[in-house]
Amino acid sequence: MSQLETAMGMTIAVFDKYAKTDGNRQTLTKAELKTLLEKELPNFLSSGKDKDAIDKVFNNLDENSDSQVDFKEFVIFVAALTCCCHKYFEQKAAK
Amino acid sequence: MSQLETAMGMTIAVFDKYAKTDGNRQTLTKAELKTLLEKELPNFLSSGKDKDAIDKVFNNLDENSDSQVDFKEFVIFVAALTCCCHKYFEQKAAK
Repeated sequence: MSQLETAMGMTIAVFDKYAKTDGNRQTLTKAELKTLLEKELPNFLSSGKDKDAIDKVFNNLDENSDSQVDFKEFVIFVAALTCCCHKYFEQKAAK
Repeated sequence: MSQLETAMGMTIAVFDKYAKTDGNRQTLTKAELKTLLEKELPNFLSSGKDKDAIDKVFNNLDENSDSQVDFKEFVIFVAALTCCCHKYFEQKAAK
């Protein structure tokens, strides 16, 4: 597998790992998303001291307001986050 | 690094690897995108026998029509593709 295929496969694997822990295996509940963010992006939630952060993230992700985050909603979130990281590294490299 | 952080880092690394080969290091030209797709997603272009495939992909990706694909445009493309792969594996698993 190429580097890009590996990255895509890993994103799918991460979603599936947490989505399968309860109820619908195709979607993340708020509890599943919280675990995912805590384990996979440990600096993401803890960087702010906002206690409602998880609710805000969840509500933003749950575009169709069905209280579940599906893969499409998740992958758009990861894309937006990757975009922010890329900008950060670009600015760092430019200094 | 967590699995998700690694996947995000790999996506950034792939883009930067091909974007830096000519001209603007922050964007992919059509030639750079072609090389990226050929090397990183070898089955993507060859699966169809459409000779204009690369032009179609490029024009779709180049949202602001500046003849350059920037990181944001690229990452949305990867997200859409990952979504398709996820659907495919889901259907396969359901059988």
